[in-house]
Order: sequence, then structure tokens, then C-alpha cells
Amino acid sequence: MTSTQDLNTSTTAFDLAAYLADRQPRVEAALDAAIRPAYPDTIYAAMRYSLLAGGKRLRPILCLASCEAIGGNPDLAMPVACAVEMVHTMSLIHDDLPAMDNDDYRRGKLTNHKVYGEDIAILAGDGLLAYAFEYIAVHTKGVSADRVLRAVAHLARAVGADGLVGGQVVDLESEGKDITVETLTYIHNHKTGALFESSVVCGAIMAGATEPEIEKLTKFANNIGLAFQIIDDILDITATQAELGKTAGKDLEAQKATYPKLWGLAESKRQADKLVAEAKSILAEFGDRSQPLQALADYITDRKN
Amino acid sequence: MTSTQDLNTSTTAFDLAAYLADRQPRVEAALDAAIRPAYPDTIYAAMRYSLLAGGKRLRPILCLASCEAIGGNPDLAMPVACAVEMVHTMSLIHDDLPAMDNDDYRRGKLTNHKVYGEDIAILAGDGLLAYAFEYIAVHTKGVSADRVLRAVAHLARAVGADGLVGGQVVDLESEGKDITVETLTYIHNHKTGALFESSVVCGAIMAGATEPEIEKLTKFANNIGLAFQIIDDILDITATQAELGKTAGKDLEAQKATYPKLWGLAESKRQADKLVAEAKSILAEFGDRSQPLQALADYITDRKN
Repeated sequence: MTSTQDLNTSTTAFDLAAYLADRQPRVEAALDAAIRPAYPDTIYAAMRYSLLAGGKRLRPILCLASCEAIGGNPDLAMPVACAVEMVHTMSLIHDDLPAMDNDDYRRGKLTNHKVYGEDIAILAGDGLLAYAFEYIAVHTKGVSADRVLRAVAHLARAVGADGLVGGQVVDLESEGKDITVETLTYIHNHKTGALFESSVVCGAIMAGATEPEIEKLTKFANNIGLAFQIIDDILDITATQAELGKTAGKDLEAQKATYPKLWGLAESKRQADKLVAEAKSILAEFGDRSQPLQALADYITDRKN
Repeated sequence: MTSTQDLNTSTTAFDLAAYLADRQPRVEAALDAAIRPAYPDTIYAAMRYSLLAGGKRLRPILCLASCEAIGGNPDLAMPVACAVEMVHTMSLIHDDLPAMDNDDYRRGKLTNHKVYGEDIAILAGDGLLAYAFEYIAVHTKGVSADRVLRAVAHLARAVGADGLVGGQVVDLESEGKDITVETLTYIHNHKTGALFESSVVCGAIMAGATEPEIEKLTKFANNIGLAFQIIDDILDITATQAELGKTAGKDLEAQKATYPKLWGLAESKRQADKLVAEAKSILAEFGDRSQPLQALADYITDRKN
């Protein structure tokens, strides 16, 4: 599934803004359709409140783009793309709880527990997590059961103690301590990287990616996941609260270890750029079909929030 | 898959104590093997603390027994049986949190958040929930992917807003209010019944149950799930803390609606017995293979804790 076309020329020509303008509303509509208001009203309202609170929808869009990069119709990957965003939303709701990061604002809106209470926020997260797997299993069409099952396993692993949950635990245990770059990288590879990886890999699985393709996409995703987190750390220092839509300077206040603290701002930016450049070179052999993924990798380091 | 043998005679002869003495340690060993200590230590310790805290293992044993009732080797259902117990454990950890039922003891031991803190308890629940689906998907052997995927969907639905989570929400919203028998039954059909149903149905799916068989087992499970909850309500009033291994009289204290409060103790017991009798009659046509399920139905109403 490689192409001999001149990738550099076509990458330059690729219109990411138009691509996002097409994909973001499609993802929004799919998420809105995935969870409709129902009884018990409170829990569905709470799940929808956070799931439909906007955001860049980077993970589902990566998932669809990865499916395309392997030559699949992105519609095949829409259910798993929605599931990834449900899992991501769950992690945000639970991370924001008073017992965890204790955040009042997220994406410029009150956090879930500030609106619905802690009990409902915990349950809304649980509900979204469970529904993610139901949604993949029931709504994926035109993909063999063994592929769908593999995506279930991959996404579940990305969330659990060997993924997002594990990263969050080490993050919590590292607060106020001097930690090494290795520990910081563990935290981010698990807290952020695992779900980026799963977004990309699950999209590719839906399209029938080969093992070598999945390996390359895994490396691509790990690089951009880490770059994303480095940029996040940089923005926590340089961006204003209005730009971020959440409390700025939280990391410094919580005495959290960050890349700028360990490396300085300039070196952090350089490392992020290097990770993205590497990521893009990995995709070279995927040809024109990987243009959206390539452009998304750039987008991650150029963003302002 | 029916039998013409005299079911009554064989049911009488069935030795449930011996059956449980065989199954409980097998389930314990499978759970212990399913989640091993690993880095990050805290989260694996917290998950294992609650997962291996004993208990009757009723749900996984029902799952295995249901697989047998359809003529399947119970080993086929062991991964999904473990997954059901992981999900059940998650629900207990989250239910016990201060923001929810605020319980200090469970099964005679300190609750998860009393030992590990609220943050880790929330994450341990999330980790168990995610791992349940990974475990089914990765460790089920000798069953076609479409069956495994169906079990994933069934179990996920049993946990989510249309299952356990939904039941918990209506339960929280009903505290201190006068509620109808219909609402109370909604709460229990979702909070307890959904997971009983999924235990039984997923075990049967592993064995290749037909749709009519699944329908009958669903009805069986709903009946014993509700009977289980009625007995739970009765025991909250009549049993001592030592017998229960958890705080007794919590329901009265929290002004929770219960069946004994709505119906009185004697009528509650009668209704539970009726549900179990109905459940057993549904299984009549499954023949000898359903002896363990039949005996488990009786066990549920005879228990003292």
C-alpha cells in the first residue's frame, strides 16, 4: 500500500483546514447520534455534556485519517473513532474530580462534577467507558468480527492500568517530587500516548492494515503523542487561560514535572519538532493517502491551545 | 439441547456444596492469574485488593454454570466469568466512594478508598472496567470472534447507563424519597439484575446458545437477580454486621426504599421464593445440564449473607 508519488509536493498542497472543516462536524454529528437523551435523564445529560463540549476531536480524526492511510473508507472507522472520544472524555471527567486534579473548568465550561455533582460525574465516566466498547461492538459495520475484537482489546489496553490509568497513577504519585525525564516520559506515553496510539492503530485495523503497517503507525502515533504532550506543557506556561479554555499555570502551581521545567522552553520545542519530523518520515512510504495524517502531525506542534 | 430425564429427582441429588467447593477456588485462581502485580505497583495492588477480597463469586459461577447448561465446556467461559467479576468489583469500589454510598467496610475489609485513597480507588475501578473487556477479547479461546464480540457488547451494556450505572443513578436520586415498587424494581433490575443477566447470557453465548435458549436464560437471570436483591434488602434488616461483613442497617439509615419497607418482611420473602420457583421452571427443558443453575437459584434465596 505504498505510492511512488512525490510526497513532499502533495503534502504541501494538502489543505488541512478544509479537511478539518469536513471532519470535525462529521465527528460531532456521529457523537451526538451515538448517545441520545434517555432515561435516566441525569446520566445521559451528564455524559452528553462532556462528550459534546467541543474540543478539537483530534483523536477521532486521527483514527479516521489512519483508516484512510491504509486505503479504507473512513466510515468503517467512525464507530471506533467515537469510542476513542468517549474514552478520552471519561478520562477528562475523572481527572477533573476533586480527588484527582480538582479542576473547575475544562474547554471553557464548568467541569462535569461542578454541574452534576461528584457522584454523577464518576458514573458518567463509567457509563462512557462501558459504552465505548458496546458502541464499537454493535455499530461497526463491514469489518470482520476478529478485527473489531482486536480493536476492542487495543483500546481497552490503552485505557487500563498499562495505559491511561497507569500514566495517571504515576503522575499523581510524582506531584511535588523531582522526577527523571524517563518517569515524565512514562507518564505521558501512558496518559496521552496510549490513546493516540489506539486511535491511529484501531483506525488502521478497521482498514485491514498488515502487521508491518500497524508497527509503523504505532511508532508514528507514539511520536506525535509525546510531541502533543510537550506542546501541552509549553502552552501551560505560555498561553493565557482564554486561549486554553482551562486554568492556565496549573502544572507550575501543582509543582508538576514538565518538559519545559526539565529542558527549558526552547529545547522542549526543538524536541517536539524532532518527534513530529520523525513521525512524518515514517509515513513516507504510505504515499498520498497519508497526507491527512502527515498534516495532522504538523497541526499538533503548531497549535495555540 | 433438552433432556427427558426426571429433573426433580436429579436436582434433589445435586450436591451444590461440592460444586461450589470445586468452582470457587477455580474462579479465585483464575482471577489471581488474570491480574498480576506489576508497575505501577499501587494501581495493580489496589485492583487486586478488591478483586481478590473474597465474596461468593456468584456471578462468575453462574456464568460457568450457564455455559455448562448449554453443553459447553466451562473453560470456554472462564475469561468472560472473570471479566464479569472485574466489572462487579469496579461497581463496588465506585459505589463505596465518599461521593457515592460512603462505605468504610466491604466484605469485612476496609473499602478500597480507605486503603488507597479516593484517587487511586477511582482509577482502580476504571482499570478493572477497561481490563474486563481486554481480558475477554484477548483470553477467550476456542470461541468464534463474533460470539466473543457479542459477549463484549452484552457485558458493556450491562454496566453502562442502560444497566448498572443507570440503576445506581436512579438509586441515588431516590434516597430519602417515597418511591413506587416500579422505580425500586427499575433500580434493582439495572443495579443488580443487568450483571446477573450478563453473567448467565455471556456464559451461554460462549457455548453457542440459540436465540430461544438465550431468551429463556435472560428471563431466568432476571428473576434470580431480583430475588437476590430482595433477599439483600431483607438481610440488611435481619442480619448482623458480622454476618454481612459490611455495615448493617445502612439502607434504613440512608432512608433508602427497600422491598421489606414497601411489602413487609414476610411478603418480600414470598416474592423472592416465587421468582426463584419461576426461574427454575424456565430451566426445566434444559435437563440435567442445568442442575448447577437450578441449585444456584435456590442458593440465592437461602443465603445468610
